[in-house]
Amino acid sequence: MNITIKDIAKLAGVAKSTVSRYLNGGNVSETTKAKIRKVIEENNYEPNSFAQSLKAKKTNFIGVIAPTLDSYVTSTVLMAIDEELRKREYTTLIISTSKHVDREIESLINLSRQKVDGIILISTGITDKHYQTIQSIRIPVLVVAQEVDAFNCIINDDYQAGFAMGQYMATQGHRSIVYLGVTESDVAVGQKRKQGVLDGLAQAGITEVHTYISQFDLHNASEVTKKALGTSTPTAIICATDTIAFGAMKTISKLGKKVPDDYSLAGFGGYNISEVIHPTLTTIRFKNEQTGIQAAKTIINMTEGEEVQKLQVSGFHFIEGESVKKI
Amino acid sequence: MNITIKDIAKLAGVAKSTVSRYLNGGNVSETTKAKIRKVIEENNYEPNSFAQSLKAKKTNFIGVIAPTLDSYVTSTVLMAIDEELRKREYTTLIISTSKHVDREIESLINLSRQKVDGIILISTGITDKHYQTIQSIRIPVLVVAQEVDAFNCIINDDYQAGFAMGQYMATQGHRSIVYLGVTESDVAVGQKRKQGVLDGLAQAGITEVHTYISQFDLHNASEVTKKALGTSTPTAIICATDTIAFGAMKTISKLGKKVPDDYSLAGFGGYNISEVIHPTLTTIRFKNEQTGIQAAKTIINMTEGEEVQKLQVSGFHFIEGESVKKI
Repeated sequence: MNITIKDIAKLAGVAKSTVSRYLNGGNVSETTKAKIRKVIEENNYEPNSFAQSLKAKKTNFIGVIAPTLDSYVTSTVLMAIDEELRKREYTTLIISTSKHVDREIESLINLSRQKVDGIILISTGITDKHYQTIQSIRIPVLVVAQEVDAFNCIINDDYQAGFAMGQYMATQGHRSIVYLGVTESDVAVGQKRKQGVLDGLAQAGITEVHTYISQFDLHNASEVTKKALGTSTPTAIICATDTIAFGAMKTISKLGKKVPDDYSLAGFGGYNISEVIHPTLTTIRFKNEQTGIQAAKTIINMTEGEEVQKLQVSGFHFIEGESVKKI
Repeated sequence: MNITIKDIAKLAGVAKSTVSRYLNGGNVSETTKAKIRKVIEENNYEPNSFAQSLKAKKTNFIGVIAPTLDSYVTSTVLMAIDEELRKREYTTLIISTSKHVDREIESLINLSRQKVDGIILISTGITDKHYQTIQSIRIPVLVVAQEVDAFNCIINDDYQAGFAMGQYMATQGHRSIVYLGVTESDVAVGQKRKQGVLDGLAQAGITEVHTYISQFDLHNASEVTKKALGTSTPTAIICATDTIAFGAMKTISKLGKKVPDDYSLAGFGGYNISEVIHPTLTTIRFKNEQTGIQAAKTIINMTEGEEVQKLQVSGFHFIEGESVKKI
């Protein structure tokens, strides 16, 4: 009977990658070594060429390309990816793109030069250049946060989350709404989340929605809110992210107005800091840890040539704070 | 006359590393290529063996080991390092340690396996194992956030910042103080910052300070505050970080008490989110961008074998919010 690395891993209760690292003299703890050695001896296993080829190929590094390092959501996803990969004895190498799409391309190439086994791309928008680059580097790439037909993806359910928020605002009696969104080049947040909000509102017969485009930072959001409140007279403001909502809060406070007495306010994010802000923010929290864990598991399966689900969708929780008034 | 790569770089107005990349057929923009070509032609430069040796050695990757990815301060430093390195045509590879000291060691080894040109270690505490590992990997390592004699370091002026905060609390009339600190294994924050606070208070004759140890997260800080307020009756609480202060704020609010009416509160951090919290937090912001830029410049100098200042100290700003009451 031919026993494989997979069988040894199963019998020893360790990852396949650990067994191959053991066979190739890599870094494995003494306890784990003992377990693997026992299984090998009991089964008279002889390493074959497969183990040798693994040696040349596997580095046990996974690259992660992140749009930013100072967002609560991205940080949570990154930490979850890192923890899960570490459990599976992989090392995570992170590159930040500061939200420049061209740096996503550059980073794909740079990580391939570093011979990582796979890449998780937390993307702000997929272009033709992405397709070409991903095909040319010949390394498994998993796309997170954007949906693209050609690749395996994990996305947030942005449309349904937006829809839930739109519906909620309608049930609270709001009829005149300002929506502070982000650039449409970000398909997930700029298009789907927004469309969800608009459809959720429309279902309740609300079509008076003034939309504005903000950057992702608090400062710009605060400026855009000033402009929006100069031209619109909403009862509620829905923001594409919590940071944008904090920017809006800052402007509302500067104008001598109050949340939720003068304006109801909601965001998307569910940062833990929201709890200490008064009033606490009504928001939607995506299952970021789950996204991170799934991303780690999926990229490992991809590097091992296993089948993975083409599209995985992470859910969300609605968090009812004190920032929306029933009118 | 023998013209060197350094001369070419100077004449072309580009980095030395760019010239060597050009000479070795690496990735250089067309505009830059044209500039370098012109200088080379005008000076009849002939690449020598130095350029060839650079080819084998340089990867233009710099590794950064970070204790966490979800802290405002670390994220700001990381983003500044990344921007500055990118300007100098280096790529930043980040590894997170989730505040496990043993992972700092592991990451030093992992990055050396990735053949980075240099490593910036944002450390939470230097042990003997660090010394051994840094010596064994034979790659320039710059330590950020902790001071160690054996290595080049960039630190915050934690003692002076603490002292300024202690003095300020005293001038506001507070005489009974709770200090929520962190583990002493973190020399910079756990020891120096705390000692600064205690000395600043002591200079004003205040010695009634009850100190507690908190973790770095909001949740634990909130628990520790509950315990602290169960045994101490301070007029002011000084927290080693803003996140700890937010945790304290949460507990104070849960107890039906108010900041600053019932307890004055201060932190260290100066996160931009503090602006939208009511009352705004009195805190100290270190010059994190400056630390990041200096770290990038210093590690490049180190990889190029240039002299660098052994110890660089970043300054801070005092931010007077609304969270401390004069009594």
